[in-house]
Parts: sequence; structure tokens; C-alpha cells
Amino acid sequence: MSQEYRIEHDSLGEVRVPADAYYGVQTKRAMDNFHISGIPLSHYPRLISALAYVKLAAAEANASLGLLDEDKSRAIARACGELLSGHLHDQFVVDVMQGGAGTSANMNANEVICNRALEIMGREKGQYEFLHPLNDVNMCQSTNDVYPSALNIALILDIRELMEAMDHLRKAFKAKGVEFSDVLKMGRTQLQDAVPMTLGQEFSAWSVMIGEDIQRLDEAQALVHEINMGATAIGTGLNAHPDYTRTVTEKLVEATTLQLISSPDLVEATQDTGVYVQLSGVLKRVAVKLSKICNDLRLLSSGPRCGLNEINLPPMQPGSSIMPGKVNPVIPEVVNQVAFAVVGFDVTVSMASEAGQLELNVMEPVIGYSLFQSINMLRRASLTLADSCVSGITANRERCREMVENSIGLVTALNPFIGYERSAEIAKEAMKTGGSVYEIVLEKGYLSREELDDILKPENMVKPRYIHRG
Amino acid sequence: MSQEYRIEHDSLGEVRVPADAYYGVQTKRAMDNFHISGIPLSHYPRLISALAYVKLAAAEANASLGLLDEDKSRAIARACGELLSGHLHDQFVVDVMQGGAGTSANMNANEVICNRALEIMGREKGQYEFLHPLNDVNMCQSTNDVYPSALNIALILDIRELMEAMDHLRKAFKAKGVEFSDVLKMGRTQLQDAVPMTLGQEFSAWSVMIGEDIQRLDEAQALVHEINMGATAIGTGLNAHPDYTRTVTEKLVEATTLQLISSPDLVEATQDTGVYVQLSGVLKRVAVKLSKICNDLRLLSSGPRCGLNEINLPPMQPGSSIMPGKVNPVIPEVVNQVAFAVVGFDVTVSMASEAGQLELNVMEPVIGYSLFQSINMLRRASLTLADSCVSGITANRERCREMVENSIGLVTALNPFIGYERSAEIAKEAMKTGGSVYEIVLEKGYLSREELDDILKPENMVKPRYIHRG
Amino acid sequence: MSQEYRIEHDSLGEVRVPADAYYGVQTKRAMDNFHISGIPLSHYPRLISALAYVKLAAAEANASLGLLDEDKSRAIARACGELLSGHLHDQFVVDVMQGGAGTSANMNANEVICNRALEIMGREKGQYEFLHPLNDVNMCQSTNDVYPSALNIALILDIRELMEAMDHLRKAFKAKGVEFSDVLKMGRTQLQDAVPMTLGQEFSAWSVMIGEDIQRLDEAQALVHEINMGATAIGTGLNAHPDYTRTVTEKLVEATTLQLISSPDLVEATQDTGVYVQLSGVLKRVAVKLSKICNDLRLLSSGPRCGLNEINLPPMQPGSSIMPGKVNPVIPEVVNQVAFAVVGFDVTVSMASEAGQLELNVMEPVIGYSLFQSINMLRRASLTLADSCVSGITANRERCREMVENSIGLVTALNPFIGYERSAEIAKEAMKTGGSVYEIVLEKGYLSREELDDILKPENMVKPRYIHRG
Amino acid sequence: MSQEYRIEHDSLGEVRVPADAYYGVQTKRAMDNFHISGIPLSHYPRLISALAYVKLAAAEANASLGLLDEDKSRAIARACGELLSGHLHDQFVVDVMQGGAGTSANMNANEVICNRALEIMGREKGQYEFLHPLNDVNMCQSTNDVYPSALNIALILDIRELMEAMDHLRKAFKAKGVEFSDVLKMGRTQLQDAVPMTLGQEFSAWSVMIGEDIQRLDEAQALVHEINMGATAIGTGLNAHPDYTRTVTEKLVEATTLQLISSPDLVEATQDTGVYVQLSGVLKRVAVKLSKICNDLRLLSSGPRCGLNEINLPPMQPGSSIMPGKVNPVIPEVVNQVAFAVVGFDVTVSMASEAGQLELNVMEPVIGYSLFQSINMLRRASLTLADSCVSGITANRERCREMVENSIGLVTALNPFIGYERSAEIAKEAMKTGGSVYEIVLEKGYLSREELDDILKPENMVKPRYIHRG
Repeated sequence: MSQEYRIEHDSLGEVRVPADAYYGVQTKRAMDNFHISGIPLSHYPRLISALAYVKLAAAEANASLGLLDEDKSRAIARACGELLSGHLHDQFVVDVMQGGAGTSANMNANEVICNRALEIMGREKGQYEFLHPLNDVNMCQSTNDVYPSALNIALILDIRELMEAMDHLRKAFKAKGVEFSDVLKMGRTQLQDAVPMTLGQEFSAWSVMIGEDIQRLDEAQALVHEINMGATAIGTGLNAHPDYTRTVTEKLVEATTLQLISSPDLVEATQDTGVYVQLSGVLKRVAVKLSKICNDLRLLSSGPRCGLNEINLPPMQPGSSIMPGKVNPVIPEVVNQVAFAVVGFDVTVSMASEAGQLELNVMEPVIGYSLFQSINMLRRASLTLADSCVSGITANRERCREMVENSIGLVTALNPFIGYERSAEIAKEAMKTGGSVYEIVLEKGYLSREELDDILKPENMVKPRYIHRG
Repeated sequence: MSQEYRIEHDSLGEVRVPADAYYGVQTKRAMDNFHISGIPLSHYPRLISALAYVKLAAAEANASLGLLDEDKSRAIARACGELLSGHLHDQFVVDVMQGGAGTSANMNANEVICNRALEIMGREKGQYEFLHPLNDVNMCQSTNDVYPSALNIALILDIRELMEAMDHLRKAFKAKGVEFSDVLKMGRTQLQDAVPMTLGQEFSAWSVMIGEDIQRLDEAQALVHEINMGATAIGTGLNAHPDYTRTVTEKLVEATTLQLISSPDLVEATQDTGVYVQLSGVLKRVAVKLSKICNDLRLLSSGPRCGLNEINLPPMQPGSSIMPGKVNPVIPEVVNQVAFAVVGFDVTVSMASEAGQLELNVMEPVIGYSLFQSINMLRRASLTLADSCVSGITANRERCREMVENSIGLVTALNPFIGYERSAEIAKEAMKTGGSVYEIVLEKGYLSREELDDILKPENMVKPRYIHRG
Repeated sequence: MSQEYRIEHDSLGEVRVPADAYYGVQTKRAMDNFHISGIPLSHYPRLISALAYVKLAAAEANASLGLLDEDKSRAIARACGELLSGHLHDQFVVDVMQGGAGTSANMNANEVICNRALEIMGREKGQYEFLHPLNDVNMCQSTNDVYPSALNIALILDIRELMEAMDHLRKAFKAKGVEFSDVLKMGRTQLQDAVPMTLGQEFSAWSVMIGEDIQRLDEAQALVHEINMGATAIGTGLNAHPDYTRTVTEKLVEATTLQLISSPDLVEATQDTGVYVQLSGVLKRVAVKLSKICNDLRLLSSGPRCGLNEINLPPMQPGSSIMPGKVNPVIPEVVNQVAFAVVGFDVTVSMASEAGQLELNVMEPVIGYSLFQSINMLRRASLTLADSCVSGITANRERCREMVENSIGLVTALNPFIGYERSAEIAKEAMKTGGSVYEIVLEKGYLSREELDDILKPENMVKPRYIHRG
Repeated sequence: MSQEYRIEHDSLGEVRVPADAYYGVQTKRAMDNFHISGIPLSHYPRLISALAYVKLAAAEANASLGLLDEDKSRAIARACGELLSGHLHDQFVVDVMQGGAGTSANMNANEVICNRALEIMGREKGQYEFLHPLNDVNMCQSTNDVYPSALNIALILDIRELMEAMDHLRKAFKAKGVEFSDVLKMGRTQLQDAVPMTLGQEFSAWSVMIGEDIQRLDEAQALVHEINMGATAIGTGLNAHPDYTRTVTEKLVEATTLQLISSPDLVEATQDTGVYVQLSGVLKRVAVKLSKICNDLRLLSSGPRCGLNEINLPPMQPGSSIMPGKVNPVIPEVVNQVAFAVVGFDVTVSMASEAGQLELNVMEPVIGYSLFQSINMLRRASLTLADSCVSGITANRERCREMVENSIGLVTALNPFIGYERSAEIAKEAMKTGGSVYEIVLEKGYLSREELDDILKPENMVKPRYIHRG
């Protein structure tokens, strides 16, 4: 083998790059500089696609403004198309945790696209005299507009997928809400027995919760559509063609079919990461509520004998080597853990955003990393929860009904019929004797079995009702 | 004095209450139970007003539905009116950090209103046979709908005041943006010299940032308008009149003139605290960005001799006992600290929200506490920053211009005129000799002084420009 | 009244100070500058005492080094003594949230001490020609050593009080551990029935947990004993007498009886706030574990009919206006909320510590505020939990035993006697029929009632045991 | 190929496992259940080693207690030895984010070890009648003692490696402290010019800081040595041999050479995760301080023309495509980002710890994940910072000295020689005229050039000094 390496150089000098690598000198330096998380950019295919969209749009804009040869533009566009089809992702080798405000991610894209485009043009990798990663692929761009714009595009695509997964989960809860609409159970506040409700109301409430979260995510992702292409270094657009911002944004809208808009103040847009804090805050909201729901699922399925035991989660794996027959709520448990991770990532995003200085926030890579981790884990957690847990939940109808009938909270529903005084008297007796409210009322003859059964019908107890108050 | 105490009782027994206290037995118990933060409810007058609005609306709704005597309703309404005028706030003595999901706050309100209403009716405090804190003042209500509804109303009022303060700050930055629009300075990315911009663009960007935050706050407060009056214990509305929810919400809209709406799913609304997480996330966003701006203000005013020294903050107090003449950026510093506190409160809100179980989130008091602290401190910080700092900032125009002229980054602006090659050559020489780009260009004769001055005009360097590229 | 104000001046000019105020011009400026939290320094009496100790020690050190007249030193010492006795605390009027790295707190102390000392010397307030707040009271000091040193002293005193409160709580749990040592109950992992244990083991474990936390706090407070008196502005000790650091530290040890030591690297000590992050991390640990314990208390006392109902918390206040007889676990609930607040404050401390720049961390005031809030709330929460909850807890012995007997987890204890196969067979049958393991075993004749009762004795099931394994 | 799969079964039924897989049915189920983070256990080789140590020690303990055949014990031991040598790690396929409190990690280990041991015994994979993953490999163990014990061992090993990396960094700073000990520069507080110091003191302070952090880490890792082997399900040791805890702990000490000790209260140890919160708090401390140092490095190297420019970081990669010659502080930037991630992970650990319920903390997997991420990233960040940044830093000695000479803060050093009055007069004139203190003093003739040069010698200005005060 005659040549394993090719020599490339940049302003700091020469570097050996593997001969078959599509990346080049700057990527190689960044690989050497950043051994931090061990997670390469290729772990985030959406980010690679987004970079490809940006480079494609820039090439087309530059060609249409007469700044770039049509030949070069076409070759760049074809190379970007290949990335969008999933090719060459293994060439995105830089650690996702990187200094330089994303410069290395941008350079990695520039170099891979350039070398692939050179091949398309019939040249060899590294023959930058025919097509240059900076002068051509990065023309009219700066990391400071490319990286956040690509981040935004990748985030939008990822959030939409998350929203779909959450909608899938929402529907799973909603279906159970319908299925359990006639299961009367005891509602609890502060973990103390309160008043009756249906298990359907419980599940239905969760579906509503998730539905609201989807709306909040939708609002947040709308904000992410604002990009800063054309800002160049600091948002002043120095050296950029006055029509470039408009043109490249149009091309990007065309390529992505997303309703991207150009930020009205590019100086502000280039230094501000408020939109990521906003999005992260909403992801945290989603996480917190998923966690709350999973806590409830675990509580309601606690037992089987020494817990609430109102519902059964589908068994997914044996629970214990020492205790025969034990099955644990492993799916809600993992969702809880995802939620805790997301709350942690939100703190990271806040700190990174706060640390931005002057004309640029150099901490964007850790912001991107945190958001991608949160979104992806929430998406997988939502699907897992829907398919491996919620859809298989069954209700212990008898147990639920018995607890209502055995409860003292039941007297609350009798208030309007036998009065607060008698209700309190019955509650006190039930407490003392351990007897059931139902039986004590019958015993005392305050109501007939028919009246009592009517009052205690689910449809009568679980919503407001016109009552003749004597 | 024959009687310093009156005896009141509740289901747990008798308690001595100071004879002149408007609060009663349950408030007294809560005072004894909760010695936690040392901050009484009276520290949050907006929350007291909001409770008064709720009690007023409930009394009117109950009267209009024929459930409460007009006499009682009127007396309650008058007592609430007095609270709204700022009277009797010192009677709200329960610690803001309390167990019981806000029950003690609700009871404190019920008892104070009841006893004041009794006086209005010509009775004495404690004569609950004529008007009862629970049966009458709390009629058709539960802490579980009263407390979050009141919290929401108080938050809306507080947020609006915060938005006004932020708008005041936004305008202060905007005015400076105009004032400094002709001050050419060096932009910096990653704390390294980048390319020129105006100081006006810098301040203007900050005003835009704050403007966007106001918009986000406005969206968040809109969500807070959804209330759950009529939910009673767990959202099922058990024992409530079917028209009560609609009626009490209408009365509350009337009283507050806020566009409050009833939540479409009261079971969900009673257990979900997502709206507080959302609001807290936006407050955190505000905090993070204020902090970023203050970091920049401190950086730009660093010096006077050994720092950037581009701007001067108005001196607010002597800075040092040991160093004559030292003046410190104390206002931005305190705003930074407020921001850190707000980020901390956001974590508290997240954890409290996550900890809600089943039909109720019992952690609402700490959520309320955290949000009020954040909002109030952000409001005061915004006003202070505007009036004691931003509005008095002056620019060191000469210093700013000298740094641009002395910078190497200047060559970037020459690229289109003398080409990248020559620019790089000049940069290298400047680095080596310590000379100025301006002088070297003149020396080399690449451009005339007139041409150079034209290129370096602020209006030409700080935005995109049509350039004939030879 | 001829004179309500006196005129004072500093390097920024003249200011009117209330004639009867002990504070002076710089305090007055700080009052005007910082309307942020609304909490004055006087809210933290320990911090005032600590400042008094520092000023006292400095005065004595300066006198002993011949730098300060004995007369002045004595007057300062007497004024400090009065502060230590609790006098004049209302003169500490500056907001605890302040810019300037604590300069205003230091100045507030200097001025109050100076003016009181002037009176002691037979002079009038404001006659600084006889004793000067800066030249004399602040001699050889800088805010940059005074403020953190005072903070440390105040923290040590506060932490010790917290440790006592926690020890009180630890003992309450330990006593219950003994009281409940014969109450057999079902242990639960992942909220699923596991194997038997005693309620005593449960409470005992919590007492051990708290005991470990006290140890961690003790280690953390030991670190806080390192102070930086003598650092002057940045730790280089510029202009300080070479013996000053040693002398003032000795005087401070003498006055406080604390084993304070001087930091070996004063430059490092003046900029580093790692000790606060460490302490805050331990406070968070305490909070997290208290919260876990309170979660468990609420779980175990859930019911009374539709929950676990293993223990009863003492009723502290009525729980509901709508549900007769409902009593809620309000004490654990408030402790949970304190815990969430502490976790939030820890994030604040982290961010504030991270924001320190170069030779000083200017964010110390918010660090102090957060730590004091956390310590004080944890202290009050611990005492409240011990006295208003734990010490009054009773066990539902029958209920606990019934759940064990009715459990399927019981079969685990039978494994060594009848083998895993038969245990599994019994578990399966119990699951299917709803029958009890105890009865099924007897029915099948695998073991006699005597054998079974022996195996299921608490003392045999809740610890390791020599078993003859056939 | 006749057989691609083998059939295995557990209590939930049959599952197809790839024929060549060393893992078995329960691992396969867990793979299917947990598609969450995409990071398999094999990403954490230390955790695999730790599990191997635990299984090895348990097998030896069981053999020595006569519970396990010597043959089986030896085969298990050899299989564990292979894992310790790095073999078969690719068989640890379960997602690190998992429900079940680590059951799936434990089962993955049991199955891989069992199947490899079967081969060693001359059997085939899956022939569990000869050696069983549960009955033999997991004998006397429960996930609830295995998982946390293994976690602790892995953490100890990882922390020690982190401490070494940090010591490497400490030495790098210390070396620069010596190298720069004669570089006089301006100290800054609150970003304002303060008084002189040496650049050596600056770097030296950072080395001290890191040294202290290493001590705190050392204390934290000492606590991690407490393990709970023998706890079985909930810490009661049900069904365990009374000598087992002691024996297995001894074997584990022998195998690992770590000073592991058995927890004195196994019930407490099995539910308590305080040690992880403690450790995480210390990691956060490390992160916060590393971040502070990196902020300072970036500040001091800001420029080259329009910043402080006191030091030069070694250029690691070109900084900009648009700005020729720009080099950015990419290494400190990535360390900052690591720090923000660590603070986030700390919040995650806190929430996960708080969420533990009753006898077990089921959230341990996310705790482990967070700690491993933090430790590993901090380790790599420390090494990178030392080798790619600190060790190559150079000082701009002239620039540093000029700033001191040009500073107004210099007057502070003159106080003892010419008095405060004249110092202030000079400061005022310097401010007004822009002149240098040095020149003005000479001009006024207050001091001779010799005297002045003596006062301004680094060795005289940067530490306390005996001064004859006239």
C-alpha cells in the first residue's frame, strides 16, 4: 500500500489525514483535541441532515447570487443529498462535546461535503484547488450562523417526532380512559382517601395532561423556526451580499419544507440562546409530568397484596431472583429516570445559556447535546410507556369497588341526602367499629338499599348533580 | 381586661385564639404547626387579594344559585372588599411554607373574612352560628380549587407588573441603543476580537432580547388564566351544583376583570401543575438572559485601565476601603445574583411539581412561594437595573474607536477590496510588529486614506453592503 | 425638632442620614441601591454576631500590633459586645441580596460599630474625626476577607444548631425503632410486596440515615473553619503588617472559641468558594434524605381504608372542609417542600460559585443567603418533624401482621424448608385463588402449624438464620 | 446453518436467544424493554469488572460455606476472570437506562458468566441444568445488594483515576505558578483593577484549588467503600447464611484489594443512596471550580488586541473561516461545557435519590449513569486541559507589567510611603489626565525613581511587608 495518509494543512500547519477519510485537516485536529464524551456527531443523524440542508441552501443561494460557479454548487448539492440519504455519516467523527462554538462540527461538514463533491466533480479527495471547504462550501457563512441554524432545523425535526410519540401515548391513555369509564374507585388527595371517581377519569386526566404538553411543545418548536443565516461573524452581516440572508433563507425553506424565518435582529439572534432555554423548559415540563404519571401508575399497581392494587401493569420481565412471582413496574421506573435526566439537562442548558458572552454563545454544543439527549430519551420513553405498559393495563374492578364501598370517604356523597350531621355520625362509627358506611347506613335505616345504590352509582358520584336539598 | 382569648373548636378539639384576632382555630393550629420559613402569608399581598376575589365570587355565585342568604353574601363581599383595599392583611399569619396543599391559607382567609363579616353583620368575632367560615364562606369550595385558583390570579397580577418593569428596562436599553448608534467598537466572539459593530447594536440587541422575554411571559401568563373553581375535592365536582362552576367563574371574571376560564377537565386541572412549571421555565429564561446581559455590562465596563473599559456604569457607591477611587458594578452584580436564585427556584418548582400524587399536588405552597420570590425579585432587579445602571451608562467613544483601529480583526473588512491574500499578509505583519492594520495598509499603499476611511465608516462596516468584487 | 438628619459624605459626595441612625453614608447608599429581596441583614442575627466577632478581633489585633490606640480599640470592642448581646440589630438595614461582594454588609457593620463606639467614647454619632468607620473599625481589613470570614463563623454556629436539631430527630426515630421492634410488617421494594421485616427496622434505618447525615455535616463544618483574615484586597496582604494575619486569627479564635485556622494560601482562599459548594451539597444530601423519609411516612400512613395504613401520624389539624374526618400528613408534607427548596438553593450556590471571576467571588451574598435559608429551614423542619409527627406515631400492629400473613412474599421465607419448587407452586395457587400462603401450606400439609408459626416468627424472618438445608 | 437461536425460558415464558449469545432470556427481555439511551452497559467497562468481582467473591464465599460445589465455583471464578481481562464485554447489551433497580444489569452478568462457565465446564451455552444463572451464579445474592455493591466498586476505581488526572492538572498549574512567579500583573476584583500580584500567584492559587478538590474527592470515595453484600432482598438477610455477609465481603476485599467494609445496618444501606448524593455533590464542586478557572483563563487570554491579553493559550485549531488569524480558547470552552453537564447530572442524582421508596431505591441505574458520565468527562477534561492548554500557556510579561505601571490601583501600594492623602490626589489626577501614577509621582517629586522602583518590585508588592510608617 503506497499511501495511507494524505497531507493537509491549515493556518496552524500540516496534518496527516487518513487517505480514505472524507473529513480533512480541521476535523482531524478537532478529533485530537476533544476526547470528552466519547459520543461522535454521527450519533445525531438529524444534526448531520440539518448541516447538509444548510450547506445545500447556501450553495444554491451563492450560485443564484452569482458568487459560486454552477458546477461547484451542483456538486455540493449532490454531496449534501447523499448525506440526507444517510450516507457518509460515519465521517462525522468529532466529539459532540467540543469547544469553539460548533466550529468543528461546521468544519467536519464542510470537509466531508467538499471531498465528496470533489469526487463527484471527478477529482480526488484533498484537491481543494478545485473546490474548497472554506471558500466554497462555507461561502458567505460562519459557524456562528451555520451551527445554530442547523441546530434549530435538527431540533424541529426531532421535536416533531417527539410530539408524535407523545400523541401515541396520549391516545393509549385516552383509550384506557374509555375502557375504564365504568370502574368506580376511590380518589385520593395527599395519599388519604378522598371521594369516589372513575378509573376512566384518572386515565383520561393523564391523556389531557399529555395533550397539553404536546401543545406547549408545538408552541416551543414554532419559536425554533427563527434562524440567523447571513449573520456571518457577529450578526452584522459584514462582507455578506445584501440579498444573501433573504435568498439563503428561502432556499432553506424550500429544501426543508419548514417555515423557517430570518431573525429580525441578527446581532441579537447570534448571541441569544433564549429559545433553547424555552424549549428545554418545556421538555422539563413534559418530563416532570410523565414522571408524575409514572409515580401514580406505580402507586396504583402497588401490591399485589400489600398495596393499592387497583390496576395491573403488564409483566415485562421477572422481577426477582429471590422472590418467586415478583413482577416489578420496570417501564414506569425507567420513564421516571429519563425524567430526572431531563431535569438535569435543563439545568445544564440554563447554565450554558447564561455563560454566553458578548456577541456569541460559545456553549452551544453542550446545549445541543443536552436537548438532543432529552428529546430522544423522552421520545423513546413515551413509545415504550405506551406500548409496553399503558396499552396492557388491566383494572381490578372488584378491588376498586370494594375500596369505595369500604371507605369512609363515601359519606361525603351522602351529605346532601342525609345531612352533614348524620354523615359525620356514621363516619365516626365506621372509624370506631371498622364497619362499612354502606352497612351502617342500611342498619340505621337512613336510606333504603335502592336509594343507597342509586346514590353510589358511578355516574351519580363522579360529577356534579342536581340534588333536591330538603 | 377580663378576656384575652376566645375559645374556638374544630374536629380536633378546642383551641384558644387571641380575643382580637380575626383569624380562628384552624389558623391558630397552622401557626403552631408551621414555623418554617418565618415568612407569613401577609408578605404576599397579591395572594391575599386573590383569595378575597375568590371568596367574593363564590359568595355571589352561591347567592345567585339560592344556596346562600343574600345577607351573608353581602357581608362576605364587604369583608372581601376590605381585604382588597389592603385592610387586615396582618391577620394572614400562617407561614407561607405549609403542609396541607394550602388548606391553612384557605382557612386563614375563611376565618378572617368570616369574623370581619360577622362584625359587619353586627355580631361578634367567633359567633359562627350566624356566619360560618366553612359552611358559608367556604361554601361549594375546597382548598383544592380555591388555592390554585387564587394562586393563578395572584400570579397573573404579579407577572403583569413584572412585564411592565421589564418593558421599562427594555426601553432603557433601546434608548441607549439609539444614543450609541454611532459608536464604533470591536465585536467579540469567544472573548477574542472579531469584527466591528456599533455599541448601539450591542444595546439594541439587549433591548430586543428583553422584548422577546416579555412576549414569552405574556404567553405564559395567558395559560395561567385557566382555573378549576367548582372542582371541589378532586375535580369530579361531587356535591356541587351543576351551574356552580360556570357561575363562580363568571363572577370571578367580573370581579377581577381578568379573562379567566374554567378548565375543560377539572380532574386533570386539580392534579396538574404543569402551568407553574411552564411559567417557572419562562422566568428562568428571563433570569438567564438578564444575567448574560449583566455579565456583558460588567465585562464592557471592566477597568478602568486594565480592562475593556468601553463603557462606564454610573457609580452607585464607593467600592473599596483599601483602594481609593475604586467603583464596582454593584447593580449588575446584584441582578446576577437574583438570576441565580431564580434558576434555583425553578428546580424547586420542578421537584414540587413532580412530587404531586394522584388527585392533587400537595406541594403547591412551595411552588407558590418560589414563583412569587422569583417574580418579585426579577421585577425589582429590572427596575433597579434600568434606573440605577443602564440609564446612566456612558460610552468611552475614543477608547472604542481606538480598539477597532488598533485591531487585527479590521482586515476582515478589507477582504473584498484588497483580497484575502493581502489581508492575511497584513494580519501577519500586524501580529509580528504590533503595528496597526490601518497604518500598514497605508504604508503598503494598497488603499488611500480616503478609501480606507470610507471602508471603515461605521455605517459601512456594521451591515451587509453591495461591493464590486473585482 | 431642629435636626432630623445629619450629613455624611464619602468619595461620591454627601448624603443625608437619619439623625438617630447608627448606620452611616455607605449603608444609606446601599439601602437605596438594593431593594431586591426585602429581607434585611437583621434577619440573620448570626451574621451580625459574626461580623461583630471579626471587628472585635481586628481591633484587638491592631491594638496589640501598635496600629490602633487602646482607647479606640476598647470602644470598638464594647460596641461589638453590645451587638453580640443582641443590641442594635435593627440598624442592619441593608438588603441581604446585594452587589459589591458584601461591601455593604461590611460597611453597615463598620458604621454601626463606629457610631456606637463614638457614643461610648462620649462623642456623637457622625464625629468620625474621633473614630473612623474605615480607618479605625475596618483597619487592616477588606470586605474581601471580612465578609467570607464572618460568613464562615455564622455558618459554623448555624450548622451546629442544625446538627442538634437533627440529632433530636434521629433520637425520635430511634425511640420508635425500639418501640416498634416487635411489629412484623411487609417490606416493599419497587412498591411491590417483598419479604417481611419489622417496623422497628424501618424506623431504625431512618435514624441511622440521619445519624450519617449528621456526620457528613460535621465534616463539612470542619472545612468552614478555614478563614482568610489578613488577605486584604486579593490575598496578597498588600499593606498588611506581616504579623497581622496570625494575630487577628488568634484573637478571633479567642473571641469565638472556634478552632478557626488561617488559610495557607490567601490568594486562593479569597477567590475560592468551594467550601460553600461542599457545604451546600451536604445540605442537599440532608434534604434529599429527609424528603425520602417523609415520602415513606406518607406512604405508610396512607388510608385510612384505601391505603397502606400501617402507621398513624398524629393529627395536627383538620384536613378538609368537604370531607368529614379527613386528616392529612401536613408535617411530612411541609418537610418535603423544605427539601425541594434546599435542592433549589444548592443550584443557586453552584451557579454563584461558578460565576466568581479572577481574584474574588462577588456573588458571595447570594451564597450566604441560600445557605442560611437552607440551614434554618432544615433546622426548623427537623424539630417540627420530630416533635409534631414522629414522636406521636402509632403502629397498626394487626393490620401490619395481617398483610404479612396474607402476602405471597411469605413463600420466600419457606424456600429453605419446603424448597423453591413447592414455594413457587404455592405462590401460583395463592395468586390464582386469592388464598393465603399460610392456609395453603397447612392445607397441603407441607408443614405443621407449629413449624409454620416458628418460621414466621418475627425474630426468625427478619434476619439471617442457620438453616438445615436438606 | 441449522440453528440460529436457542430457546430459553423464565417465569414469564419462552424467548428466543441468538445461539451464539452468552447472555440469556432475561437479558433478551431487558434488551427489548429498554430502548432508551442507546448506551449499552458495555460502555462502562468498570461496571462490568465490578460485577465480575462481586460474582467471583460470591462464588468463593458460597463454596467456602459449603453452599456451592467447588467445580461450579471454579468455573464461575474463571469466567469472571475473563471478564476482568476485558473479554466478552460486548455481551453486556442492556441499555444503561433501565427499570428494575439494576435487575437487568445483574441478570446480564449472571447469564454471561453462567454461559461462559458452562463452556469452561465442557457444557454448552444454555445447559442450565449443570450451572444455573440464578441458583448458582446469583446464589445468596439479590440485585438489591449486587448492583449497589458493584456500582460502588466501579465508582471507587473511576474516582481514583479521576484523582490522578486532576493531580496531573494540579501539577501543570503548579509548574506554571513557578514559571510565572516573577511576572507582575494587576489583580482584579469584580472585574475592576485592584492591586498588583504575580501571575505565578494566580496559577499557584488554581493548583491549590484543585489540590483541595482532590482531597474532597478522596474523602468522598472513602465513604463509597461501604457495601451491603448479604442484605438479600431488603437488608434483613432473609435466607442468607449468617456467615455469608462477612465471608463474601472478605472475598471481595481480597479480589479487589479495596478496603471495602460491610454496612453496619443493611436495611438502611439497601435503601439509602446518600453516598451517591455526597459524591455527586463533590463532583459538582470539582466542576464548578474547573469552570471558574477556565473562565479566568479565557478572560486573561482575551484579545489579542481588544482584551486583557495577559497570557497566550496554545493554539489548537483555527478559529474562524471568515476572520484570518483568529484562534479561540477551545479547550477551556469544552471544559466549561463539561462542568455545566456535571451540575446537571448532580440535579438528576438528587432527584433520583429523593425518589427512593421504602426498602429500595429503584432509581439507581440513572444515578450510576450520571455519576459515570460526570466522572469520565471530568477526567478527560482534566487531562485535556492540562496537556492541550495549561502546559503550553505563555505570559505576555511586558503587557502585564505595563498594565500595572499604567494602573491607578498602583497608588494603593504607595499609601504607606506618601500617605493616603497624596495617594488620593495622585489617583484623581491620573483619572483626569489619563496619565500614569508612576510618572505623576516622579513629576511631583514625592519619591525618587529608585524608591519607586523599589516599592514596585514584585517581591515587595505581592505580600505583606514591614514598613516604617512615619
